[in-house]
Amino acid sequence: MPEQNTDGMTAKKSENFDDWYTQVILKAEVADYSPVSGCLVFRPSGYSMWENIQRVTDAGFKKLGVTNTYFPLFIPERLLRKEAEHVEGFAPEVAWVGEAGNSKLDERLAIRPTSETIMYEVVKNWIRSWRDLPMRLNQWNNVVRWEFKHPTPFLRSREFLWNEGHSIFASREEAEAERDQILGVYKMVTEEYMALPGYLGKKTDSGKFAGAEATYSIEHVLPDGKSIQGPDFHLDGQKFSKAFDIAFVDKEGKRDYAYQNTWAISTREIGVMLAVHGDDRGAVVPPKLAQYQVVIVPIVNEETKTDVLVAARGLEAELSKLFRTLLDDRDHLTPGRKFNEWELKGIPLRVELGPRDLKSGQVVLVRRDTGEKRPVKAADALEEVEAELEDIHHNLFRKASEALAKNTREASTLEDLQKIIKESGGIVRIPWCGRKSCEDILRQKGGGKILNIPLGQEKPDATCVSCGEPAESVVNYGKSY
Amino acid sequence: MPEQNTDGMTAKKSENFDDWYTQVILKAEVADYSPVSGCLVFRPSGYSMWENIQRVTDAGFKKLGVTNTYFPLFIPERLLRKEAEHVEGFAPEVAWVGEAGNSKLDERLAIRPTSETIMYEVVKNWIRSWRDLPMRLNQWNNVVRWEFKHPTPFLRSREFLWNEGHSIFASREEAEAERDQILGVYKMVTEEYMALPGYLGKKTDSGKFAGAEATYSIEHVLPDGKSIQGPDFHLDGQKFSKAFDIAFVDKEGKRDYAYQNTWAISTREIGVMLAVHGDDRGAVVPPKLAQYQVVIVPIVNEETKTDVLVAARGLEAELSKLFRTLLDDRDHLTPGRKFNEWELKGIPLRVELGPRDLKSGQVVLVRRDTGEKRPVKAADALEEVEAELEDIHHNLFRKASEALAKNTREASTLEDLQKIIKESGGIVRIPWCGRKSCEDILRQKGGGKILNIPLGQEKPDATCVSCGEPAESVVNYGKSY
Repeated sequence: MPEQNTDGMTAKKSENFDDWYTQVILKAEVADYSPVSGCLVFRPSGYSMWENIQRVTDAGFKKLGVTNTYFPLFIPERLLRKEAEHVEGFAPEVAWVGEAGNSKLDERLAIRPTSETIMYEVVKNWIRSWRDLPMRLNQWNNVVRWEFKHPTPFLRSREFLWNEGHSIFASREEAEAERDQILGVYKMVTEEYMALPGYLGKKTDSGKFAGAEATYSIEHVLPDGKSIQGPDFHLDGQKFSKAFDIAFVDKEGKRDYAYQNTWAISTREIGVMLAVHGDDRGAVVPPKLAQYQVVIVPIVNEETKTDVLVAARGLEAELSKLFRTLLDDRDHLTPGRKFNEWELKGIPLRVELGPRDLKSGQVVLVRRDTGEKRPVKAADALEEVEAELEDIHHNLFRKASEALAKNTREASTLEDLQKIIKESGGIVRIPWCGRKSCEDILRQKGGGKILNIPLGQEKPDATCVSCGEPAESVVNYGKSY
Repeated sequence: MPEQNTDGMTAKKSENFDDWYTQVILKAEVADYSPVSGCLVFRPSGYSMWENIQRVTDAGFKKLGVTNTYFPLFIPERLLRKEAEHVEGFAPEVAWVGEAGNSKLDERLAIRPTSETIMYEVVKNWIRSWRDLPMRLNQWNNVVRWEFKHPTPFLRSREFLWNEGHSIFASREEAEAERDQILGVYKMVTEEYMALPGYLGKKTDSGKFAGAEATYSIEHVLPDGKSIQGPDFHLDGQKFSKAFDIAFVDKEGKRDYAYQNTWAISTREIGVMLAVHGDDRGAVVPPKLAQYQVVIVPIVNEETKTDVLVAARGLEAELSKLFRTLLDDRDHLTPGRKFNEWELKGIPLRVELGPRDLKSGQVVLVRRDTGEKRPVKAADALEEVEAELEDIHHNLFRKASEALAKNTREASTLEDLQKIIKESGGIVRIPWCGRKSCEDILRQKGGGKILNIPLGQEKPDATCVSCGEPAESVVNYGKSY
């Protein structure tokens, strides 16, 4: 039997983060293991978080003029091999289909690890002139990367769900201008919906997407001090357009190759969110993403049961106008058992309603994030719940931002860097000269790697922690998941 | 180069349906071929139809208490083999993953042709007692069935998108009561959104889903007289619950196996819709499913250009309040070229606005379904467009229903049946004794097969067209796609 929600948490977040994380995922019934190693089952609570992420992200994309499409799951081997850096990056993790029914296929088919190659082979035929551009396409789909490292639910899964945006422009300037638009959508979703802060920056050349000219990422930090890459955006320049012949006739009648970008947010983000916000009692789900935002728990005895339940149903109807509301009227469980269950599952706000509350015309709000209890007038319940949920979101974001700030340190020597990474992890801000040779040394000796380079910074008055030459920039360094 | 929208239709629907259908799909830019034989690319117009179908179907499911989940794409071979009839039905069409990276896998993984086996192996652990039931789960995902017959875009694709509903009940009665709820959602979506009529009925034992006790389907008829199965619903009884040990403790404390149902609507429905409604000028898309419901085409000359475009933008803002509206202000194309393009693409309603219209305070509505032109007061545009779109939907459904009725005939002898199927196709209503031996004869000799058995009928006063014995029921017979 798997672990069930009837058993509470036993691991402590601060003592054994890995065990704690697995318990939260399983006991809060967000996800479950599957018979396929490294592939996850999204239970209703977990999938509804993804539905909420999808909904707001998709609306953000559509406002920018992005339209959705669907391309095949399969990529013929010869196509995957068309862009050299791309196949080199992905081939070691590709799952291959070699047979169908009882027949061996003539050519192996890759399960998409990402769809550049299958998309661009088709999309090139949709473009003739500059009038057909920009073309901003997106897919919400599943991809497979058969990692051989230890899989972790959400954070490192062999199959995951994501958006993959693919846009095509007539000029480099237009392509580059898309960067802040898309990263703006991702920042909005991570901060305003998932209550997750992160560090935006440009990846180094060795950290960029296989086939891209430049990659930009939001880097998060987990409570165990390890960093993890969140949503990202890639400027692909003309790398794929030249490999796949995505050309157009420009306003002057000349033929040119198009400029392309790609961008993604994945279900990994759900894992980051659960890891950052949860506590020793279980999951803490930000209100805008929770399957249920409010749970009403009536407190009854035989005498008052009818009255309380009638009032609870009225309250359910009222709160359902604005919120995803659940009335827990199961009669074989004590209120205490219900409190524990919904705390474990992370429902942001509990509303208690008993005979005494009924008499005094009040209900009691109990916040999941702080445990704070507050009686409010029953007549004001809708507005009070609205304000409380809003405040819970802001509190989660504030706490997470404080934790991130606390987990961000500075080092000006390799020794300091090594010490910080070893003792506390987190993000270390270090000056770097910009050379790959020093990046390699920092990776070998520092205990982590350069995660990304914050944007818009001036050249620092500092020296590279590796070589001592003048630094080009201050970078985010950390031990990556 | 593939066929582009700049070329109009050349095939006639009544003369060469297959060519016409392919032209509509490609030239209206609904879908495109892909480098993987039998796998389709959904272009923005086609995918937005699916988004609209998903949205209303999903809302219908959620109202019934169904929640969404996600299970892995892969099914280990041993699991797929757990229910004998099920694997027998699907194994010949399964795409198998045998390698990942450079490693051969220990066990082959099936790409899901449907998810019963991977789901039930996990879900059984989520159920202990009757209190955990009903559990009504759904997935929106991609599945692969490697058919070796000639693939046709949407109608027979090796990869397709669908919903797969999987519900689990404590009693046969509850499970059976779900049938009309789910088929009600499918009927609502097909009729009220896709403007598609069909015949609901129960499949014969040889036509049912591999592993089900009974299958119910909506059968459509294409303009070429061939029938095609639409959404379906399966009563699985205890077949899977016994194979996968999905058991629960009932109210009396006894252990019993659960009762299960499964149900699906797929992207095939988009193909049926395009085939049924389109005409010799291209696609005709029902208003509720169209990516754009209204296109505004300004008619300008150099003098009046500014005024007309300002008015057109105002109209766009007004109509966008309620409708997916596109303003076609491209200045290198004549209005005539634009008319042709949007007719080819099937936008339900065109609004023309020229200098004379501006003067007289009117706009001209042109319906895609009838070609009818009607000037209306510019001030009433929003209400007029709303009424017109509503009427277009009803007209499409009425026309499709009339065509279906016209394509439905009766036969009381095998000779009549053979003649009708050969000469006109469509649905033939025939009395049948209910025996498999006669069903086999009808399949061998009739030129088609029994599609389904209409529900709620009384025993007819007629004899089986095959054996001449008293008939059990009148059934829908046709040549299936």
